Amino acid sequence: MESIKDKVAIIGMGCVKFGENWGKSLEDMIIEAAYEAYEDAGIDPKDIQAAWWGTCFAGHTGQIMASPLKLKYIPVTHVENACATGSEAIRGACYAVASGAADIVLALGAEKLKDTGFMGLPQTRPIATWSYRLTSQTPPAVFAMLATGYFAKYGLSHEEGKKILAHIAVKNHYNGSLNPKAHFQKEITLEQAIKAPMIAYPLGLYDSCGVSDGAAAAIICRADMAKKFRADPIYIKSMQIAQGPREGWLSQKYDFAHVEETWRGGNAAYKEAGIKNPRKEINIAEVHDCFGITELTIMEDLQFSPRGMVKEDVLAGTFTLKGDLPVNTDGGLKCFGHPIGATGLRMQYEVYKQLQGKAGPRQIKNPRIGLTHNQGGEPGAATVSVLITGNELG
Amino acid sequence: MESIKDKVAIIGMGCVKFGENWGKSLEDMIIEAAYEAYEDAGIDPKDIQAAWWGTCFAGHTGQIMASPLKLKYIPVTHVENACATGSEAIRGACYAVASGAADIVLALGAEKLKDTGFMGLPQTRPIATWSYRLTSQTPPAVFAMLATGYFAKYGLSHEEGKKILAHIAVKNHYNGSLNPKAHFQKEITLEQAIKAPMIAYPLGLYDSCGVSDGAAAAIICRADMAKKFRADPIYIKSMQIAQGPREGWLSQKYDFAHVEETWRGGNAAYKEAGIKNPRKEINIAEVHDCFGITELTIMEDLQFSPRGMVKEDVLAGTFTLKGDLPVNTDGGLKCFGHPIGATGLRMQYEVYKQLQGKAGPRQIKNPRIGLTHNQGGEPGAATVSVLITGNELG
Repeated sequence: MESIKDKVAIIGMGCVKFGENWGKSLEDMIIEAAYEAYEDAGIDPKDIQAAWWGTCFAGHTGQIMASPLKLKYIPVTHVENACATGSEAIRGACYAVASGAADIVLALGAEKLKDTGFMGLPQTRPIATWSYRLTSQTPPAVFAMLATGYFAKYGLSHEEGKKILAHIAVKNHYNGSLNPKAHFQKEITLEQAIKAPMIAYPLGLYDSCGVSDGAAAAIICRADMAKKFRADPIYIKSMQIAQGPREGWLSQKYDFAHVEETWRGGNAAYKEAGIKNPRKEINIAEVHDCFGITELTIMEDLQFSPRGMVKEDVLAGTFTLKGDLPVNTDGGLKCFGHPIGATGLRMQYEVYKQLQGKAGPRQIKNPRIGLTHNQGGEPGAATVSVLITGNELG
Repeated sequence: MESIKDKVAIIGMGCVKFGENWGKSLEDMIIEAAYEAYEDAGIDPKDIQAAWWGTCFAGHTGQIMASPLKLKYIPVTHVENACATGSEAIRGACYAVASGAADIVLALGAEKLKDTGFMGLPQTRPIATWSYRLTSQTPPAVFAMLATGYFAKYGLSHEEGKKILAHIAVKNHYNGSLNPKAHFQKEITLEQAIKAPMIAYPLGLYDSCGVSDGAAAAIICRADMAKKFRADPIYIKSMQIAQGPREGWLSQKYDFAHVEETWRGGNAAYKEAGIKNPRKEINIAEVHDCFGITELTIMEDLQFSPRGMVKEDVLAGTFTLKGDLPVNTDGGLKCFGHPIGATGLRMQYEVYKQLQGKAGPRQIKNPRIGLTHNQGGEPGAATVSVLITGNELG
């Protein structure tokens, strides 16, 4: 098997300010994200040869995105894979470019969650998200099981566990406070995080991401053409997804202390990108912190920390902006909420800006290799991508 | 721009009997279609490296298909593009293989329409299928406008128009009568078609497709590996989609006598495949006859008949099993209904079997090049693929 790893690059990205965007329609956000990306890439909208559109709640055809962008009679494909939908849009775009079917394409994800309500009444497709329904479990309840399972397996008391999670919340809120595009741009204290109202034991308010509207876009192009458009394109070295069984955490086989999909997705991505030591080689990661416990276990599943030992890295500040391996430098889902179709692309946006040295007050020092991790379902699917500033990898 | 045209092949296909499959669950149909395809390809389920899953009503993650097939921790992507969903599954699979990301992948589409009702209550996503809603138009009403528009533009009286449509219905029902996998396997007469109850003027019962359950699957593989699996792989020479504006036929700009998306999608596919004279070069076509008038206009939009002149070809029997260019040899949507996610793959199944000379009593004489046309939306998107028995095209 070959790979896509020397074939595709990102030459432009756009991202709206996430939040309660009552004053913007879905179409407004689509246009804003796409045109920031066009301008960033220095291309004309007419240069787009095909497009991939990620959304869960905004309709099931490519037309929903094609119309506001006036993309006429080119291929526009809708993809959806639960919370990993945004990453699927990029993946579809990468495969098309790597296959030779197109040279320059658009990947865009958007969601209006404030209008429709996440998992609310409009989401009534018959079999969709069935495991939540069968068990009457909301996402906080499902991920709370991961927290209690992890705490139990590694002998953390409630107080110890909550403290580790609070450090993650404080870090992500600090990062978000430096980010004008975040929904929440406010620092919090450890005490606030620990004493916050309980959402689903042991997860409190600050251990959970919010509900936001948002959109983000990427222009994907053939790697060998990328430098025609800009001096600092970012290359995509791998784009992998591991899809787990539908039963997810309903299965007794889960240990509720890790996410197998993330471990497998990470391994597949490292293999494709030629990464041998993730902890040393990855310089920045944007991961799926829908809940603090998810970020915690992702650090172990992606091999950033040894099993059961992530607490030491968290307490040592490893994942802060000044640490060895900054994680969720933009504030993560914690500060951006999770407008489903947009999240995977919003992650790419941050890694792209960081690798270009254009992340403003959040900029970390000389990152060369970045990673995104976007999880879909319960857990369902884990998508992992590796981005790089040049073609340094083999 | 290169193309995918020398890179991918179909090495196996499966298709369940379409119909009112009350006795089979969605999962039963998924398994049946996939295992027929595995067996046809001579592969083990474990050989599948990634999968694309097309459905509109059966849930929005790859898990829905991954679980019954026990596809564990490989990439499984859900795609959806209204009525063209099945073709999007194949297109995603083709791009992945052509990109080098995978060698052997599965594309599968399935739908249980009898349980949920097409456009029925479970379909309540907020913006989905909005143009139907805004105008309170059902699909028969939308396509009836195409019929009245076509009849008016080309001066056909109601009687003349109905007679042409009846010939299409009789042809497709005859073809379906020879097909053990069709939902409806019964011949009808011209008189029955013409005198049938009106559904949406001028479209009658036999001018409209039914409501069925179904599933179909394809194993897509690298072209250069295909002959390891079978002596008669079928190569995919082009796979194009033209996505029209969301407004569709609500726009005053439409002439209601053709479908611009189909014309553009066909042209793009012919260009990619190197086809200069579609009428002479294409030997068999499976097209989106959701209504008789759709098949009628597709014949002109795909350049099989000159504008306004298709009636002559219909009356001359050009598109019958013994004609110059047989169309919908399996009975089409007319006899298979339109289980959305399955339709595009069901079309590929028939072309694949015909090109291999394995279509039983429906077999046409020595076809070499086949085409599928799958329309999504109002009309929204037109996907056109070109399949060939060998690498004869340039």
